[in-house]
Amino acid sequence: MTDAYVAAMKGVMLSINPQAKLVDICHNIKPQDIHQAGFVLSAACSYFPQRTVHLVVVDPGVGSERRVIILRTPSADFVAPDNGVLSYVIQSLVKPVTLKDQQVELGPELQAVAITEPEFWQSPVSSTFHGRDILAPVAARLSLGASPTDFGEAITSVAMLPLPCPYQASDGSLVGHIIHIDSFGNLITNIRGDDLPPTTEAITVEVGNQHISGLSRTYAEGEGLLALVGGGGYLEVSLSGGSACALLGAEVGDEVKIRRQGS
Amino acid sequence: MTDAYVAAMKGVMLSINPQAKLVDICHNIKPQDIHQAGFVLSAACSYFPQRTVHLVVVDPGVGSERRVIILRTPSADFVAPDNGVLSYVIQSLVKPVTLKDQQVELGPELQAVAITEPEFWQSPVSSTFHGRDILAPVAARLSLGASPTDFGEAITSVAMLPLPCPYQASDGSLVGHIIHIDSFGNLITNIRGDDLPPTTEAITVEVGNQHISGLSRTYAEGEGLLALVGGGGYLEVSLSGGSACALLGAEVGDEVKIRRQGS
Amino acid sequence: MTDAYVAAMKGVMLSINPQAKLVDICHNIKPQDIHQAGFVLSAACSYFPQRTVHLVVVDPGVGSERRVIILRTPSADFVAPDNGVLSYVIQSLVKPVTLKDQQVELGPELQAVAITEPEFWQSPVSSTFHGRDILAPVAARLSLGASPTDFGEAITSVAMLPLPCPYQASDGSLVGHIIHIDSFGNLITNIRGDDLPPTTEAITVEVGNQHISGLSRTYAEGEGLLALVGGGGYLEVSLSGGSACALLGAEVGDEVKIRRQGS
Repeated sequence: MTDAYVAAMKGVMLSINPQAKLVDICHNIKPQDIHQAGFVLSAACSYFPQRTVHLVVVDPGVGSERRVIILRTPSADFVAPDNGVLSYVIQSLVKPVTLKDQQVELGPELQAVAITEPEFWQSPVSSTFHGRDILAPVAARLSLGASPTDFGEAITSVAMLPLPCPYQASDGSLVGHIIHIDSFGNLITNIRGDDLPPTTEAITVEVGNQHISGLSRTYAEGEGLLALVGGGGYLEVSLSGGSACALLGAEVGDEVKIRRQGS
Repeated sequence: MTDAYVAAMKGVMLSINPQAKLVDICHNIKPQDIHQAGFVLSAACSYFPQRTVHLVVVDPGVGSERRVIILRTPSADFVAPDNGVLSYVIQSLVKPVTLKDQQVELGPELQAVAITEPEFWQSPVSSTFHGRDILAPVAARLSLGASPTDFGEAITSVAMLPLPCPYQASDGSLVGHIIHIDSFGNLITNIRGDDLPPTTEAITVEVGNQHISGLSRTYAEGEGLLALVGGGGYLEVSLSGGSACALLGAEVGDEVKIRRQGS
Repeated sequence: MTDAYVAAMKGVMLSINPQAKLVDICHNIKPQDIHQAGFVLSAACSYFPQRTVHLVVVDPGVGSERRVIILRTPSADFVAPDNGVLSYVIQSLVKPVTLKDQQVELGPELQAVAITEPEFWQSPVSSTFHGRDILAPVAARLSLGASPTDFGEAITSVAMLPLPCPYQASDGSLVGHIIHIDSFGNLITNIRGDDLPPTTEAITVEVGNQHISGLSRTYAEGEGLLALVGGGGYLEVSLSGGSACALLGAEVGDEVKIRRQGS
């Protein structure tokens, strides 16, 4: 980013909590890509210390009617626009997810608040930069021990993207989708390693018009395209020493099929 | 950056002040682009805690006769080459700015020092990396409470870029310029929201050969090109869900005109 | 990086040592480029405080038989895959370097350990992300004062890349190679300033089909291509106000010749 936006937010937070330990997760999310931001957040957040405050500002609707919210889970707080960017985090906590009007009902173990109390905001509030003027000061105060309800009223449902789910096709294959492409060009699917048949040497992974036979354990095994279970627990397609994305021209949303060999 | 330059500077600073809290503003400034660096710095610095030390190294003249300086303002310290990179910061503090030989005279509320005292530098000093060998150790010592005059003699004027100013054209329109293009492709002008006519629905913003009617309040309003007042207080031109820069092929320096509708 | 990988590692480390001060060296290393990572690491690490723990994860062989190691030097600890990524660091500490089976024997002043003790790892260990599950927890514990031998057995040799060395050609010229290209497009060679003839005005630097006469002291001197000794102590080729790399189409590994004028 050739911008002052992130730095301004950090300045606001350090002005409120000079002891805050700020850690960047990612500042290269494609503009307006709520889905990508949500995935990357969910892939990082579980490794942070208990009660970390996660601040997310991928916010194309800034200044419009969309809410800004706090989500308090058993392990962390999330401060974010209520635009679905927390979908992957919620998916890992709420089971089953039932969508109604693109909202998900939260269970009792999750506390959510709509941030409405202007007392703690920067003044004036820019209608184009709530990250700096609303979310950053709220996150900083949460890191000092404030309670979510200091900032607004409790809510019981929040926005949720309709995340694709792997499904069993009529021909017996398991059909998933690419949900993220990482910086190495690895194609990360929504099929979890746990969902694969136990004898993984007997499966074929189909992506684009390529067929990959069996699972590898590491990127260094074999040559060409590999399928393996990556660090996040998801099946991914990888090119040894190269970019599977570049080779296949793959995109987020593309189908990946798992077929039992011989079936 | 695929470089050790920034890290080496951080290492030097932490060796002097292990408690220093280091925050990155931006490391993607276009090589040698003093103007861009100055704008981004000015857009971030006012959000930081009182007495933050800001270190700037966009320094194409490193090792030449250009000075390196400390600027102490009522709220912060700046350590930088004296090449105009502090122009936007100074513009916000000195009114009116009068340039003489590309220098601006500082008022009594601003203290400046030319860094000449080698006692506090790394040894030997590389003639190509004053950032690491002069500026970083000085910044670290300022963060420990050193006085600017520990590092050299007071000076009363510093380098200043001739920043473009909006002006009233003979046809009554207000003419400004694009001074920054952000990572989203928003075109940020030097026209401040405060300088716009009070009835902003009745204005037309002209950029390239496009005409934008009225001001929007947020990026999410309407479709296509929008004009609005951004988080930094400047009028900007934005493309809903896209990059105004890519659409218009706009560049820093391009004119933007504000015209009262019907005039 | 549009990834959660680095953030996950930071989360793991802060969970173990909440007081750890994390400093990023570089996250833009070309995928699998052990050589580039090794150079950038060596260019940064000597500027950090004594006993800094340096964590390196450029690890194309992750999950394979390659070891992960700790290297303890008189000034710092390095935690890294044993794939040669520490070659430049070792080159600066072990003299002379003698390679045997792509390994270098370490002297008594260097302590190395193969990390084999799973007690301190994340559980389960992903076979594709030892950075997060093995290296990060080990680095965090070293930062808390743990001893390298807490994590495995001492070893006496580690992997080393065959780094190119400058040599005297039969025509009397000194032949070096480009070992790094920085973000400004400067071509950094393996010829140290100390290795140049004392009267540097009388030399010609040849790169591509260009001849550069004499050494400059700074980037700002003269126009066009310059040769100078950069901040890391190496001879580099630079283009005033531009990118020598783009102008010359140069690549890492290309030859650079130093010739005495008139010879």
